[in-house]
Amino acid sequence: MTPGLDATWVDQLMDDLFPLCRSITGNGNRATLARVGKEIDLTVHEVPTGTPVLDWLVPNEWNLNRGRLWGPDGDLVADTDNCNLHVVGYSHAVKGELSLSQIANHLHSNPDMPWSVPYRTAYYAQTWGFCLPYDDHASLLPGMYTVDLDATLEPGALTYGELVVPGTSDREVLVSTHICHPSMANDNLTGIAAAVALARWALSAQRHLTYRFVFIPGTIGSITWLARNRDVVPRIAHGLVLTGLGDPGPLTYKRSRRGDTGTDRVLARVLADRGGQVIDWYPYGYDERQYCSLGFDLPIGRLSRTMHGTYPQYHTSADDLSFVSAERVLAAVDVATEALELFDERRPLTNTAPEGEPQLGRRGLFAKIGGTIGNASKESTYLWLLSLADGDTDVVDVAARAGLPADEVALAAARLRDAGLLAQG
Amino acid sequence: MTPGLDATWVDQLMDDLFPLCRSITGNGNRATLARVGKEIDLTVHEVPTGTPVLDWLVPNEWNLNRGRLWGPDGDLVADTDNCNLHVVGYSHAVKGELSLSQIANHLHSNPDMPWSVPYRTAYYAQTWGFCLPYDDHASLLPGMYTVDLDATLEPGALTYGELVVPGTSDREVLVSTHICHPSMANDNLTGIAAAVALARWALSAQRHLTYRFVFIPGTIGSITWLARNRDVVPRIAHGLVLTGLGDPGPLTYKRSRRGDTGTDRVLARVLADRGGQVIDWYPYGYDERQYCSLGFDLPIGRLSRTMHGTYPQYHTSADDLSFVSAERVLAAVDVATEALELFDERRPLTNTAPEGEPQLGRRGLFAKIGGTIGNASKESTYLWLLSLADGDTDVVDVAARAGLPADEVALAAARLRDAGLLAQG
Amino acid sequence: MTPGLDATWVDQLMDDLFPLCRSITGNGNRATLARVGKEIDLTVHEVPTGTPVLDWLVPNEWNLNRGRLWGPDGDLVADTDNCNLHVVGYSHAVKGELSLSQIANHLHSNPDMPWSVPYRTAYYAQTWGFCLPYDDHASLLPGMYTVDLDATLEPGALTYGELVVPGTSDREVLVSTHICHPSMANDNLTGIAAAVALARWALSAQRHLTYRFVFIPGTIGSITWLARNRDVVPRIAHGLVLTGLGDPGPLTYKRSRRGDTGTDRVLARVLADRGGQVIDWYPYGYDERQYCSLGFDLPIGRLSRTMHGTYPQYHTSADDLSFVSAERVLAAVDVATEALELFDERRPLTNTAPEGEPQLGRRGLFAKIGGTIGNASKESTYLWLLSLADGDTDVVDVAARAGLPADEVALAAARLRDAGLLAQG
Repeated sequence: MTPGLDATWVDQLMDDLFPLCRSITGNGNRATLARVGKEIDLTVHEVPTGTPVLDWLVPNEWNLNRGRLWGPDGDLVADTDNCNLHVVGYSHAVKGELSLSQIANHLHSNPDMPWSVPYRTAYYAQTWGFCLPYDDHASLLPGMYTVDLDATLEPGALTYGELVVPGTSDREVLVSTHICHPSMANDNLTGIAAAVALARWALSAQRHLTYRFVFIPGTIGSITWLARNRDVVPRIAHGLVLTGLGDPGPLTYKRSRRGDTGTDRVLARVLADRGGQVIDWYPYGYDERQYCSLGFDLPIGRLSRTMHGTYPQYHTSADDLSFVSAERVLAAVDVATEALELFDERRPLTNTAPEGEPQLGRRGLFAKIGGTIGNASKESTYLWLLSLADGDTDVVDVAARAGLPADEVALAAARLRDAGLLAQG
Repeated sequence: MTPGLDATWVDQLMDDLFPLCRSITGNGNRATLARVGKEIDLTVHEVPTGTPVLDWLVPNEWNLNRGRLWGPDGDLVADTDNCNLHVVGYSHAVKGELSLSQIANHLHSNPDMPWSVPYRTAYYAQTWGFCLPYDDHASLLPGMYTVDLDATLEPGALTYGELVVPGTSDREVLVSTHICHPSMANDNLTGIAAAVALARWALSAQRHLTYRFVFIPGTIGSITWLARNRDVVPRIAHGLVLTGLGDPGPLTYKRSRRGDTGTDRVLARVLADRGGQVIDWYPYGYDERQYCSLGFDLPIGRLSRTMHGTYPQYHTSADDLSFVSAERVLAAVDVATEALELFDERRPLTNTAPEGEPQLGRRGLFAKIGGTIGNASKESTYLWLLSLADGDTDVVDVAARAGLPADEVALAAARLRDAGLLAQG
Repeated sequence: MTPGLDATWVDQLMDDLFPLCRSITGNGNRATLARVGKEIDLTVHEVPTGTPVLDWLVPNEWNLNRGRLWGPDGDLVADTDNCNLHVVGYSHAVKGELSLSQIANHLHSNPDMPWSVPYRTAYYAQTWGFCLPYDDHASLLPGMYTVDLDATLEPGALTYGELVVPGTSDREVLVSTHICHPSMANDNLTGIAAAVALARWALSAQRHLTYRFVFIPGTIGSITWLARNRDVVPRIAHGLVLTGLGDPGPLTYKRSRRGDTGTDRVLARVLADRGGQVIDWYPYGYDERQYCSLGFDLPIGRLSRTMHGTYPQYHTSADDLSFVSAERVLAAVDVATEALELFDERRPLTNTAPEGEPQLGRRGLFAKIGGTIGNASKESTYLWLLSLADGDTDVVDVAARAGLPADEVALAAARLRDAGLLAQG
């Protein structure tokens, strides 16, 4: 773990970010990136409304000032000052008196989570709406309701943040997390906190690969980033989408579309060593949808815990800070850090004395008294490396084939390199 | 189901065909094809005796007039007017008085089915014989027997029927069924009825592929057809051998020799959706032996129910009309029809907007209010298609990978085609 | 089984070899090869000390005359005339009085096998030592000990034996076994006895392939052989390392490094037919380490019973003649002989009449009366061969695919060859 990045740090960052009203555009996102910018030196990009990005256009910018709904008796039914999920994302402004039947199609609730406010958006629909706990919704009485939805939806910009940490190689690792969800913790303050922690790891030493971190609104953000970075795309060697890392579920890696990339093999190895699970590609989810779309097909997978949509708190006000834990976020950072370290190690190994075994004893790499070599000994790790280092194999491949922890194999590889028996290209 | 092809239709066709005395040649086959010709417009081919076909020669034509065997007391032991299995297929004519020991090697029975007449043939052996229920055989008394086996075996022709239904493409689907079995129902009146029903389906609309139906004697018939159709063979894209479709066993597809052809994938998909089973290639069986022989190796598998040789009625007089049901034949036709429909859909899909996801909402293909997409929704079917449509994948491949019903995927593909997002080559 | 090679023969050979004091060099090895030379006509090679062999040099020659250790009370604690494992292999000479603390680092025992003398070596360490039963070791009293370790370690030679049995082809099968272990039976008198028996099989008839048998010290011996036989290496088509064939464990084949060579497929087939097991490659073990090292990567696997290091008698004086049985050695020879026979059969099969099935009946290869072909019949074996004989398939492949015994398939292939339907390249 990078020094200083403890549970207190994670909690403080998530506490500060929680109240901000984020969406795919707007001032809430700018405030979010400003807070992240106190941790790492972020470049903030503003992409104007109307900019063509792949099959899409950057939409109008949305800013919510406040949304309130009063009942016939003057009681406040919903107020975004209490919970910013009360207004459907991208609602246009509305002000006036409307009967219950007139607003019926503009009210949203979820009977499966009757006491929580659901999260709904209408980015491209030109409508408005309020979200309510189902119990409140069901008890609304006929009569006239007062609506005051104070929001602006007009030309502006889409905002995202980016940090590039150059390595000795221009081949890149892309770490991407979305910043478009308003006050929900697991989705996605945990992803943001983990990405910041990984950026701090990348900054803490000179690495072989270049590490790039992007903090973007979901879907339209990754589409915008891809449209503006066509030169970077061919250099991406690995990548991770981070989200949903604080719930109680097991760490879960979703494979890239290709399913057998180096990224997939590294994450499978790391999670096998640590009890996580790996699942196959499927084409919905988060920004891996865009990075792995057929025309890009990048070696990028997603690290999460419980799958989105399968826990009841998902996309409701119940996904609050009490639902997540900093320790679980840090455990995810640990796994992702080991993956990033192994990405750096994924250079092909070549046995420089491939005919027969080299005399390891002469080089101090073998026990002096023979007859007692165990299967998981240092000696056998050397032999596995020498046996498999055919110029097209890396430490992760060796670890997988030998059933040994990848970090031990990396250490043994370093010793064989020092002894001149192994080249790492 | 094609209109008019109900259980009554199947039963009528099988009732009419049952009494005819079929073999690999002869007038019984001509009568069989004449009856089939009342349902579909069949071309009847006559191939003269002695014609070289691959490693074989077309044999003499065999016609059985009547075969009778009387015991020492004058009782009629066997009479083909009662059951045409009583005479070994291709027996030459015999008339005379013979002792029991003289006819012993010419009598055949099956102790495992002691009350049934077994089916035996001697196409290339120049011999004669009678088949009896084992119980009758075992109780024969010594003495002189009277044999009157009235048959002709002389130069003539091998007869088969063929129907070609042209599509917009000259690539073909071959449906083959054998007509060489005398009065047995499952093997193979059920195969004949199913092939006729599929031909009616092919005729009911313009299809993409060309569909060819052949009604042939087993082994020598498919060898003859292959020898005479060398120009057609390279255009065969798919095919099915149909037999044994009326017994109570589960629908079973036997893979082609290659085992991973498009035909194999389509049938695996259809049967997975409908509870049938798939088994590996093996080199004995019916005419798939010839179509999949090494020198042709066609993408043709076999659809059956219980494997031949593993039910006690197989190749005996107990395989009669009471052993099969028209409903089971129609269920097989249903499966085969879906397979033929998917053969027609097996054109490669290409995502025409592969970079990122296209904006489905703008095209009315995505729900307007976000935050609630389920895994088996229409939306996810579109995403699966877009994710996999790399120009080398068809709807059946997508259905298999996504775990979705193939007909739903075909429907979603049609909508994406209409929206200009998918090309089907 | 080759005539004369019965249990009595195995026992006699192992009895004669057991007392000899073998190591990686020395007169014990010469005596071992002399005894083997009474069975087969062996060429003995002497490679001088200092000869460069791959990454190594041939070491000094070691000869042990006698090693004795007396306790403070004059009792004889260890004497190599009783058990030659008492001295660490390659100990230099020592003579004198030493206190218990002075010899402490030179004493070796194994608490897991407290009543046995462990086997230890120090080939490249320039040290000396005694090995004791742990119970004896633990009860040693302080005081002065008398050491008389009479050995020579000086320039000489490395000795190995070789027999080449020429076939009609210059492609070779290499059978290798190590002769460097002193008085232990399973490791490796059983390997030596099995290799001799296989050599007698190779000599008993003219074979297609050339068979080469090497009797070498472990590691440095195979390295020496590889360094001196670079011309032979490219001709090696198959090979087996033999060791540990007399213990009660199941016969076990360890795959070559590549894991899918013809050798691997043959052994998998033979052991499947006989209840043995197959395990994956790993880079420690015996001389397969050298033959399968990356620079050679030969199609050579290892035949053993219980894995070395996993039975308590391994590398101790408890691995004596009572631990092994001649019957188990002969069962291993049986398996290896069948493998060698199949190596000889592994020539690609080509169906010479691939279009349709050839008319087997005409050639006397099919039953005359049709309607009764079973699945495991001779007929179906012919059909499997004809179906798979595509010029890149051998009898072992056919046996594996068809699930038939390899020797039956070989017999059927011979009949199809005689009928002109199959070519074997």
